[in-house]
Amino acid sequence: MQLYFNPASPYVRKVRVTAHELGLSDRIELITLSLTPVSPHDELRSRNPLGKIPALITDDGAVLYDSPVVCEYLDALAGGHRIFPVPGGARWTALRRQALADGIMDAAVLIRYEQAVRPQELRWQSWVDGQFLKIRTALDALEQEHLESAFDIGTISIACALGYLDLRFAGEGWRTRRPRLAAWLGAAGQRPSLAATAAPAA
Amino acid sequence: MQLYFNPASPYVRKVRVTAHELGLSDRIELITLSLTPVSPHDELRSRNPLGKIPALITDDGAVLYDSPVVCEYLDALAGGHRIFPVPGGARWTALRRQALADGIMDAAVLIRYEQAVRPQELRWQSWVDGQFLKIRTALDALEQEHLESAFDIGTISIACALGYLDLRFAGEGWRTRRPRLAAWLGAAGQRPSLAATAAPAA
Repeated sequence: MQLYFNPASPYVRKVRVTAHELGLSDRIELITLSLTPVSPHDELRSRNPLGKIPALITDDGAVLYDSPVVCEYLDALAGGHRIFPVPGGARWTALRRQALADGIMDAAVLIRYEQAVRPQELRWQSWVDGQFLKIRTALDALEQEHLESAFDIGTISIACALGYLDLRFAGEGWRTRRPRLAAWLGAAGQRPSLAATAAPAA
Repeated sequence: MQLYFNPASPYVRKVRVTAHELGLSDRIELITLSLTPVSPHDELRSRNPLGKIPALITDDGAVLYDSPVVCEYLDALAGGHRIFPVPGGARWTALRRQALADGIMDAAVLIRYEQAVRPQELRWQSWVDGQFLKIRTALDALEQEHLESAFDIGTISIACALGYLDLRFAGEGWRTRRPRLAAWLGAAGQRPSLAATAAPAA
């Protein structure tokens, strides 16, 4: 299999952590690229029309995206229901947490585009404030969740979202009023799958 | 159950079409609201920290989001695997198509925010162009797919994405060079689930 990859992407990291947890990393070749919505990548667009990563080319030559789909595919390839629980309460919790974490990533990436890609004179502080409100509200909600009981697609996604905040928004100090979440990431981050896929410092 | 709702949201429409197809519409009460990233809705934020719709309150009082999660939950509630195929080729195709359609919606909504919400002097044409490129490339890819063989979460999502383009970007004329896709939507749109949930004219 081949995976379109960038080391800074939290969405790609979800796939790499999943593959590592499932023992599939050795079967995935990484194709490295860089892109933004205003600097698209034509080869990638010919595989994933949305021009986004991750995109996985399976051994059958099919192309799969986005990260939730690729992660669930890998889970099935490894026998199924190891990181995506069977339908029932645990599954809905894991999928809701994945959506919450992906939403943190979406907001953080939009802030990044606003602050690092858009021309300075066209930036809109209210947009940045609105996206940060989503992130802070989500972090406050996560502080109240009992994450310790599961390592599945929900908690994998949360770890990758928090890692991206550390990479791009370390100055925001998300740990300050969220000691339980910080302690959880400190422990979870020791897992080989997360340690092996941490983004290099910016 | 209760569903946070806006008649223009293509993501909410996915849930309503799914509920209709599964015979669950009568069990869902709609809570209507309006919001953008710069005009958040505090009650919604207390349920879904991301402040986005759809969010579903289940009969157990749990809150589920985003649209893929709510749709899969409803499918399980109705017995399972009626609009989300069992793991295998059909499932990966349906989920990839859902991601493609959701990506069209994401790009279209970002263009809408740029053109209708952001102050005029802060708008960036390159951003709009980059998002439209994603939409056009996705539509060209859909023109090549054989959508007739399935009515599942993939094709439901595609119909809702195309409906949103008709609502907000009718002037773009997406049908012009995509006759097969246009014919498919013309036929699919006759289904009671899609006819009953069409957005009112803008």
